[in-house]
Amino acid sequence: MGAPVDRTRVRRLPELQVDDPAVLHDILDAGTIGHVSIVHDGQPYAIPVAYGRSGSSVLFHGSTGSRLFRLLAQGAPCCFTVTLLDGLVLARSAFETSMHYRSVMVLGSCAVVDDKLPALAAISEHIVPGRWAVVRPPSRKELAATLVLALSLAEVSVKVSAGPPGTSPEDAGFDVWTGVVPFRVERGEPIECEEE
Amino acid sequence: MGAPVDRTRVRRLPELQVDDPAVLHDILDAGTIGHVSIVHDGQPYAIPVAYGRSGSSVLFHGSTGSRLFRLLAQGAPCCFTVTLLDGLVLARSAFETSMHYRSVMVLGSCAVVDDKLPALAAISEHIVPGRWAVVRPPSRKELAATLVLALSLAEVSVKVSAGPPGTSPEDAGFDVWTGVVPFRVERGEPIECEEE
Repeated sequence: MGAPVDRTRVRRLPELQVDDPAVLHDILDAGTIGHVSIVHDGQPYAIPVAYGRSGSSVLFHGSTGSRLFRLLAQGAPCCFTVTLLDGLVLARSAFETSMHYRSVMVLGSCAVVDDKLPALAAISEHIVPGRWAVVRPPSRKELAATLVLALSLAEVSVKVSAGPPGTSPEDAGFDVWTGVVPFRVERGEPIECEEE
Repeated sequence: MGAPVDRTRVRRLPELQVDDPAVLHDILDAGTIGHVSIVHDGQPYAIPVAYGRSGSSVLFHGSTGSRLFRLLAQGAPCCFTVTLLDGLVLARSAFETSMHYRSVMVLGSCAVVDDKLPALAAISEHIVPGRWAVVRPPSRKELAATLVLALSLAEVSVKVSAGPPGTSPEDAGFDVWTGVVPFRVERGEPIECEEE
């Protein structure tokens, strides 16, 4: 994560840009899904994916039957975005009303991961720690149907919005509550299900 | 929301595709942020945005100073994705481990909304119902700095994954708990803040 290059320099609200790799890693480690976007026939597509992190790469997987994953595997330019919504920032004006969030945008091209098992284990451990050791590992056929991709964190933009509500002199006379409504993703009690 | 055209037909796991506009509207109404993606110099970018819905369009806004929003305003092809993560589906195999989610992907080009106030009110009401009536409305200068965009829901793909864990004959012998860990986004107690 070097100095931001032109494509990842934050132009809007540049004071929200963060250059600390520890913050980048914390955001990625705290998220569960990201959105990977790719261009096909001039049209962008952004699809949700589970992911993991291994050092300075993010890892995700998809089916060999997926057109978009095949394009990713061919090295097409992509963008991987993780956004954590931390709260609503209620200001006295509509204009200053905003959100607390942490976001990561990674630009680049994916590399195909040949050594699939450790990468799939990393994705699994990211989402449900400890689960990989107890489930049936992928069969040879299942592995063959799975594309595993790695995207380097070389070109990234990290933004953190965590400040108080903004105000302006025009807000005088609008005596309205201001503050933050925190958002939190809760994992509820596990629900046992009959298998399909 | 007619029959899916080629670009929005779900090829992978087509049984998850939903054609009911009520489901589309419910997902959009339940979400808080989406990701809008756009192509610039062959590179896709996906950025988080707050949004609202007005009938059969989604609405979002950005700064006139944003390069990506200016491209959107010029009618560049875009993709707007909302993903609600409802739970983790823990199967007996790594391969069948999955997630419960509801997702909407809208393809198209944005139209610039000239009548900005009702659209901004719709976005505000979507996120914090009742707030628009009590905050200071945008000034003429603030409105001039804001691009408001509408994206028709004409070309959409809706997927809902809500089934039980899958299993296969190879799972015999893996006597591991299976079920769903539900995810829920909680809005916490509001925190009063000093203004900036």
